[in-house]
Amino acid sequence: MSDSIRKILDRIKQFRDERDWMQFHDPKSMAASITIEAAELLEHFQWKSREEVQEYVKTHKDHIAEEIADVAMYLFELADNLGIDLLDAMEKKLAKNAAKYPVEKAKGSSKKYTELHK
Amino acid sequence: MSDSIRKILDRIKQFRDERDWMQFHDPKSMAASITIEAAELLEHFQWKSREEVQEYVKTHKDHIAEEIADVAMYLFELADNLGIDLLDAMEKKLAKNAAKYPVEKAKGSSKKYTELHK
Amino acid sequence: MSDSIRKILDRIKQFRDERDWMQFHDPKSMAASITIEAAELLEHFQWKSREEVQEYVKTHKDHIAEEIADVAMYLFELADNLGIDLLDAMEKKLAKNAAKYPVEKAKGSSKKYTELHK
Amino acid sequence: MSDSIRKILDRIKQFRDERDWMQFHDPKSMAASITIEAAELLEHFQWKSREEVQEYVKTHKDHIAEEIADVAMYLFELADNLGIDLLDAMEKKLAKNAAKYPVEKAKGSSKKYTELHK
Repeated sequence: MSDSIRKILDRIKQFRDERDWMQFHDPKSMAASITIEAAELLEHFQWKSREEVQEYVKTHKDHIAEEIADVAMYLFELADNLGIDLLDAMEKKLAKNAAKYPVEKAKGSSKKYTELHK
Repeated sequence: MSDSIRKILDRIKQFRDERDWMQFHDPKSMAASITIEAAELLEHFQWKSREEVQEYVKTHKDHIAEEIADVAMYLFELADNLGIDLLDAMEKKLAKNAAKYPVEKAKGSSKKYTELHK
Repeated sequence: MSDSIRKILDRIKQFRDERDWMQFHDPKSMAASITIEAAELLEHFQWKSREEVQEYVKTHKDHIAEEIADVAMYLFELADNLGIDLLDAMEKKLAKNAAKYPVEKAKGSSKKYTELHK
Repeated sequence: MSDSIRKILDRIKQFRDERDWMQFHDPKSMAASITIEAAELLEHFQWKSREEVQEYVKTHKDHIAEEIADVAMYLFELADNLGIDLLDAMEKKLAKNAAKYPVEKAKGSSKKYTELHK
């Protein structure tokens, strides 16, 4: 794990433990919180056209950054609670996705791999 | 941004650009994907008791790591697409949360800050 | 409650009770399931343009109907478990929304009421 | 479709059309809204134990009814927009679930059918 991720993780865990909140942070509750915060992020863009979103992100960058941070903090902590190295997990999933979505088949296509390999 | 985050981001963006997928990665679609992947993570724990989850995470660590990675990859890319430094955003949100949830009021309590400050 | 809703509710509850599943159907788990199924519904449309969605719903109507039914079954049951009359709750919320979004202000606008009343 | 569902649907569509909102109600946006509202429902129960939820639903029944109504209104409208009869779709999915979860295998078990049939 990188020093910078270790550093923010230490602060997240210090915040949690000063408040004695580990008792609430079982994996199911953490996953529920990640979903709830992700839906709040999505809500910022709801009902807006692609052009309206482009305008909105310029004028609401700090709000969106907060929602992204909310998702990230629960995600980083959950990975750590489960003994998962986040960057390592991302490396592995990228390699797996590269096999599922070979460039020559996936280029310019939004199809799911289940559709792609028919 | 740390070197390790920069490195995984470069690989995520290379994966995306080799497939010409930036055209699909507007912020609303990215936020929808983060929510969808978060719900898939939550589904792993659905209907399970706290004890059953504890057993499950031991025997399904790789699967859960993949779901966490899916959320993380979209989240890292969205932050980058919007010019948001993820670690910096987390630092700021932690500071804000510390003000919303002072230790002396929040310790051992699962109340939302709107309840906490009544 | 209407006869047709009572009838489907009776079948949902019979299905549940034959399997002895009420023990798993606490409100939090039900709300999590509604969210998970809603995200699966959303996934059908992910990465597709408005035009592609229009084509997709024609050729995948049965699949989409199943996802909608999944959300509806958990939602109907949760309301019933909590002693909430679903149609009555909808009537009340519609009346509340009419006050939040007066026609003269909301017409043709996708703004949230918090924006609308500034 | 039952008379009572037809009646609430007519009111939902009248509310929408008086505000000229059909332009925003494409299936992807509707599915996103169902997910967002479902996550708001879930948020009510987040961090609470099963016992705390039991207390909470007694004292917050009206708030929860509103969240359930929000999900239901988008769900009823989406089904109608796609020409799907909601009750009919539920009947069909129940029959399908009965085949996936036979009583003798599923009784008292929270396993997914993919686990159940191993």
